[in-house]
Amino acid sequence: MAGNTSDKLQQLRQILAEVTDLNRAALVLEWDQETYMPPGGVQGRAEQLATLLRLSHVMFTGADVGRLLDGLEDELSSAPFDSDEASIVRVTRRDYDQARKLPPDLVAEIARAGSVARPVWEKARRDEDFNLFAPYLAKNVELNRRIADALGYRDRPYDALIDRSEPGMTTKQLTAIFAELKEAIVPLVAGIARNADAVDDSVLYRGFDPDLQVSYALDVVKRLGYDLERGRQDISTHPFSTGFGPGDVRITTRVSRDFFNECLFGSIHESGHAMYNQGMSAEIDRTPLWDGASPGVHESQSRLWENLVGRSLPFWRHFYPSLRKAFPEPLTGVDEEAFYRAVNRSHPSFIRVEADEVTYNLHVLLRFELENELLEGKLEVKDVPEAWNARFKSYVGLDVPNDREGALQDIHWSFVSFGIFPGYTIGNLVSAQLMEKIRADIPDLDAQVEKGQFAALLGWLRKNVHRHGRKFTPDELLERATGKPLTAAPWIAYVRKKFGALYGLQAVRS
Amino acid sequence: MAGNTSDKLQQLRQILAEVTDLNRAALVLEWDQETYMPPGGVQGRAEQLATLLRLSHVMFTGADVGRLLDGLEDELSSAPFDSDEASIVRVTRRDYDQARKLPPDLVAEIARAGSVARPVWEKARRDEDFNLFAPYLAKNVELNRRIADALGYRDRPYDALIDRSEPGMTTKQLTAIFAELKEAIVPLVAGIARNADAVDDSVLYRGFDPDLQVSYALDVVKRLGYDLERGRQDISTHPFSTGFGPGDVRITTRVSRDFFNECLFGSIHESGHAMYNQGMSAEIDRTPLWDGASPGVHESQSRLWENLVGRSLPFWRHFYPSLRKAFPEPLTGVDEEAFYRAVNRSHPSFIRVEADEVTYNLHVLLRFELENELLEGKLEVKDVPEAWNARFKSYVGLDVPNDREGALQDIHWSFVSFGIFPGYTIGNLVSAQLMEKIRADIPDLDAQVEKGQFAALLGWLRKNVHRHGRKFTPDELLERATGKPLTAAPWIAYVRKKFGALYGLQAVRS
Repeated sequence: MAGNTSDKLQQLRQILAEVTDLNRAALVLEWDQETYMPPGGVQGRAEQLATLLRLSHVMFTGADVGRLLDGLEDELSSAPFDSDEASIVRVTRRDYDQARKLPPDLVAEIARAGSVARPVWEKARRDEDFNLFAPYLAKNVELNRRIADALGYRDRPYDALIDRSEPGMTTKQLTAIFAELKEAIVPLVAGIARNADAVDDSVLYRGFDPDLQVSYALDVVKRLGYDLERGRQDISTHPFSTGFGPGDVRITTRVSRDFFNECLFGSIHESGHAMYNQGMSAEIDRTPLWDGASPGVHESQSRLWENLVGRSLPFWRHFYPSLRKAFPEPLTGVDEEAFYRAVNRSHPSFIRVEADEVTYNLHVLLRFELENELLEGKLEVKDVPEAWNARFKSYVGLDVPNDREGALQDIHWSFVSFGIFPGYTIGNLVSAQLMEKIRADIPDLDAQVEKGQFAALLGWLRKNVHRHGRKFTPDELLERATGKPLTAAPWIAYVRKKFGALYGLQAVRS
Repeated sequence: MAGNTSDKLQQLRQILAEVTDLNRAALVLEWDQETYMPPGGVQGRAEQLATLLRLSHVMFTGADVGRLLDGLEDELSSAPFDSDEASIVRVTRRDYDQARKLPPDLVAEIARAGSVARPVWEKARRDEDFNLFAPYLAKNVELNRRIADALGYRDRPYDALIDRSEPGMTTKQLTAIFAELKEAIVPLVAGIARNADAVDDSVLYRGFDPDLQVSYALDVVKRLGYDLERGRQDISTHPFSTGFGPGDVRITTRVSRDFFNECLFGSIHESGHAMYNQGMSAEIDRTPLWDGASPGVHESQSRLWENLVGRSLPFWRHFYPSLRKAFPEPLTGVDEEAFYRAVNRSHPSFIRVEADEVTYNLHVLLRFELENELLEGKLEVKDVPEAWNARFKSYVGLDVPNDREGALQDIHWSFVSFGIFPGYTIGNLVSAQLMEKIRADIPDLDAQVEKGQFAALLGWLRKNVHRHGRKFTPDELLERATGKPLTAAPWIAYVRKKFGALYGLQAVRS
């Protein structure tokens, strides 16, 4: 453990490569668990994953990595910020310090609390009995406070948690963004509710052959640019994307005969994630840089392809003829514009994961507020359902009928992870912010999409987003790509224009 | 690292459990590579496997394991030989010493030589050019000598190699067994050749719907006792079985429209391997005991189900009606006995992996002899093709047309592993030796099979073979199960009776 800069970098990269290999092996095991593993495999798989992740943690947080980072930080102080070597050292340092700041017994306590709370949450949700889950949520609030204390923060405890998943973001920045969103969306949602009949989506429920849906979806994502030489599509209960390296980035989808959107938009969404990983530079493979800049930026790629491309009129002008050929019966008498309108129907609903483009961010706002208030002791756990329901009524306009469709719906609070939800909204905003710049750089984008040409769009994303992996924080990445840090304005303009037109709401614009 | 016996055992088991987890993770990655991995995944997968196996090796061969074994050997000296704890310590010691005896630079050289030789072997085989491969085979002979020297042996270098895969077996023992086999089979093969027309297998080539074949095969192995709650069947180029623990033991198969045997007998063969793993005692899970007693004993289980059960007349009396229902067209005019005869057709051929029950062991004998002669310098690499062809003519009666169908056919010699081939013959012999005892213990076995009842047979195998895993060496296991060490007599009696009847050769009996 010594030598010159290139020796040290070589040694560091060797350790990081092996840590990456262990983490990727764990991802393969998780992919298998969700797709093909027989029921009897559960226990053995849990043991295998625990061993892989324990070894990866031990190897990554060892003193060797610390010593190498110390030396390299000095020696690389004049290397360009965006060089591979400076970025590897900078991002590894961030991960290393965060990992070392959490005391091992807190990490163990979090794991235990999560595995104890999970079945209780499941039962509470099934029984619609929040009181059953309340003590476990209280414990998780306490653990989240201890995580925040261990990581440290300048202003509010949530800062530590959000910075952990969305590096550089602050509670203050998010609070301002959510305020702006709330002001814009709540009246838009109300306007849509008044004109709800303007969009008819009954065609989506006419019954579509499942096998055909899956193969059609695969054909679409292939044409968007998802590389099947380095990927594949399987079926799982919840769609996901996972990457084991530049040569193997997979997606899953699900399919329902009775609801068209699940399969195709699920596949497009996951292919957006997967194309991000497929576009990361080979030079940063097997380092901590080979991953999304943050969960939020990752979500921006899936949302961009799913919503800004896949739910656009030019997209359907191109694909609708082939869709109609594949499914002549259910699509009888429906033209491309009617179909475009159907897949964009907006209607307030209780469950976040089923929410449409317009209402989605309101679901996130609610959770962002409650997590903050719980962390800071301004809200007691026992009062969560009441607070949830009141806010849901005020933001979305619906009366929550029970806690299963309210405060108990998400799994997240059962395994101790506050600070995750904002990433979904960040993803939506980033997608629109990038798209604004893409439209400036590729003025005929719509015409290209209408011709089924996606190469220029994917090329732009590769150059400005994908290849960098985690080299930059979300704001750094956005500054470089669009000249601005995260802003809600492009997304607000996008939904106002799109849904204003769909629902005849020109008057809503402020 | 201290404490009383149970503390030490606990510590040893903890290390062994993590080593097992790493090895099983590697097996999952290999399963994925053979079934679903996209082409682009090759390089990343090789890196992940190398890391997993390196870490498993480092963890297993570390000084901790040695110290714990030293202590436990003293303290457990009066524990029963077949107790879990004594067996874990005994078998771990064997593995540990063998792993430590190979110097790390020899291990690295073997890995390098293998990866260099593999593509050359592929090209040489494709081009039917033995000279291209000769220098690499020469290198591998030298490495095998060095392995034998490092491991040590009493009598002949091959002893070290065979003991490594088939613990307790010696070259002398195998030489005697092969001599006995040769004496019995060569005239049997000649007799079959004279009466070749006695068996017509043209029905097998009439075309069978591939999807139906795969689902029929899965149904059959399920009824034999392969537990699909703890297993599954997929498709791969070469069928295999792999176990990630008691709850997840998988098989693969392959299917050809134009040749019936591949799919069904492939599935039955692999399910025999898989039922072995599914039957191992839960108490020895995550220890070196949780595996087959040897590759040869593992092969005995696959061969027993494939040949002694699956190619028996009682088996077809039970299954043929459902097979005929599934494939009415190709089976028109063929009755169960004609089908039984078809699947048992014996005809000499050049390729070992396509060899029938009678000729298979002759292919192995040839390799056993050549490997020994190469190791001991009695045969030079350049003379291998000539020696191969002369012996093949004398044993099987055919003229080898080229080295692709001769000395270049097996991949094994490209990755430095002498001493593997005898396991296939040991598997055949063990299957018949066990079956002789099973018939004594279950006198109405044929009647049970004819009724589709396999529980008593599987129960016998579980009790006498499966549950023990690697607790006993092959000979120890056979002594316990049948009262005798390995012997060729039951297998010789079996093929003489079966093929004598099929080909009308009563006169062949000696």
